[in-house]
Amino acid sequence: MYDAFAARVLAVRQVRGPLVLGLDPSAAILSSWGLADDAEGLEAFVDVALSAAMDSVGLVKPQSAFYERHGWRGMRALERLVREARAMGLLVILDAKRGDIGSTNAAYAQTYFGEDAPLACDALTLSPYLGLGAMEPFFAAAEATRAGLFVVVHSSNPEGRALQQATGGNGRSVAAKLLEEIGERNARAAGALGSVGAVVAAGAPRTWDLSAMRGLFLVPGVGAQGTTPEDVASTFSSCPARALPSASRSILAAGPDPRRIGASARALSARFGELLTD
Amino acid sequence: MYDAFAARVLAVRQVRGPLVLGLDPSAAILSSWGLADDAEGLEAFVDVALSAAMDSVGLVKPQSAFYERHGWRGMRALERLVREARAMGLLVILDAKRGDIGSTNAAYAQTYFGEDAPLACDALTLSPYLGLGAMEPFFAAAEATRAGLFVVVHSSNPEGRALQQATGGNGRSVAAKLLEEIGERNARAAGALGSVGAVVAAGAPRTWDLSAMRGLFLVPGVGAQGTTPEDVASTFSSCPARALPSASRSILAAGPDPRRIGASARALSARFGELLTD
Repeated sequence: MYDAFAARVLAVRQVRGPLVLGLDPSAAILSSWGLADDAEGLEAFVDVALSAAMDSVGLVKPQSAFYERHGWRGMRALERLVREARAMGLLVILDAKRGDIGSTNAAYAQTYFGEDAPLACDALTLSPYLGLGAMEPFFAAAEATRAGLFVVVHSSNPEGRALQQATGGNGRSVAAKLLEEIGERNARAAGALGSVGAVVAAGAPRTWDLSAMRGLFLVPGVGAQGTTPEDVASTFSSCPARALPSASRSILAAGPDPRRIGASARALSARFGELLTD
Repeated sequence: MYDAFAARVLAVRQVRGPLVLGLDPSAAILSSWGLADDAEGLEAFVDVALSAAMDSVGLVKPQSAFYERHGWRGMRALERLVREARAMGLLVILDAKRGDIGSTNAAYAQTYFGEDAPLACDALTLSPYLGLGAMEPFFAAAEATRAGLFVVVHSSNPEGRALQQATGGNGRSVAAKLLEEIGERNARAAGALGSVGAVVAAGAPRTWDLSAMRGLFLVPGVGAQGTTPEDVASTFSSCPARALPSASRSILAAGPDPRRIGASARALSARFGELLTD
């Protein structure tokens, strides 16, 4: 029986630091590593990525889109990546930003959670345009399998800001209301931290009480997207040990030598470890 | 060279009516058809679905989640479904509700648009929590390949309402603002209808000027979710010929005999054809 997701994260964080290594095999990365932009190149990417992540980070985050673009062969490579990473003791956050009506979410939950799930992972990202209330099948599946969820609340891209800052009936923004609803859900769970986390980029409004959410934060956009470790530390100063910063391009650019990628990830994770302590 | 997506839809609609047949192989449907809930059962479902759709409807809409839950073998079945449906002259709307930051959306666009795309389809559904501005790679790919997009604006489930009706800085709701932005984009395109449509459920606010969006509407939730043809006709009274109602469970329940499914789909499409005319 696994510990709950949040407990697994806090344990691995002690040893490897808080960095989440994004495993995003874009055409640009495959090309810079001398790999073909096809399913075979993707399988070679997976081998290097696993070798680089082992002993350097505690968490990896494959972005599903970069595997899906190679069709079913790409999904087969992603399944192998997730399976082998977990067998190595890495925690896998699958970045798929799924979200639909309840009956469809139940089908997605079967994809990602449970021993028989083809992409059984430690945590999944969700996109909430159809409402948090539609995500009950995800919540139930995650609780039953001791997995985690990260609902996108405050994204790293400027184009999302207008929608996420629109004002709901209670006078709060869409994003603040989501944080509040997640916090209420996590408050009902056993333990200090619940299974539902949020994707919150650095620069989130200072007025938000992030610690009240009682969950973990996945922090996108570090490195290539311009966010610095200091930005992350500043945004999450009320609950630094709950922040999991994620970087992909800036680390993978050190490849294809897995030792160089691993060294780059280790250095950044150590830097974050210093900045993000309670 | 294909005609633009909207032109293809209007042509096929003349002959087969406006119904979009949802191809959602849930565990319940597979079981009621006497099929195993595995990749082999899914391949058998695809055969029946193609046979039922041929000569009965002009458009089909597989929901990606129901294929993804069978892992890469499920995606292989979905790829075959999409390829064979298009070879038969059916238009395929892939219901995947993708949406992320721009660089990730570019990877998703490679999955769904263009001759070499593994899931090359006629149109794709998108989820807009990260903003319409982040969807430029989808817009560009759809225009280049004469495909369409359907951005979820007003979903069929009640849990989405609070977020979608939150008020933006201009005093409009999130949903109304999306419709307006889509309309502005479509106004710049050649032809009366642009390539960007919207998912709008029946019961959308009467104050919305739907015809101003200059695009097609995918209307979910007909049948099993409780929406009647009259509800759809009432909501889209300002532009009835642009509404594409979608039904899945209520039609597939007539299976596994493809003739019975086809007859059920044909009858519903004819009923919608009478109600939804300019």
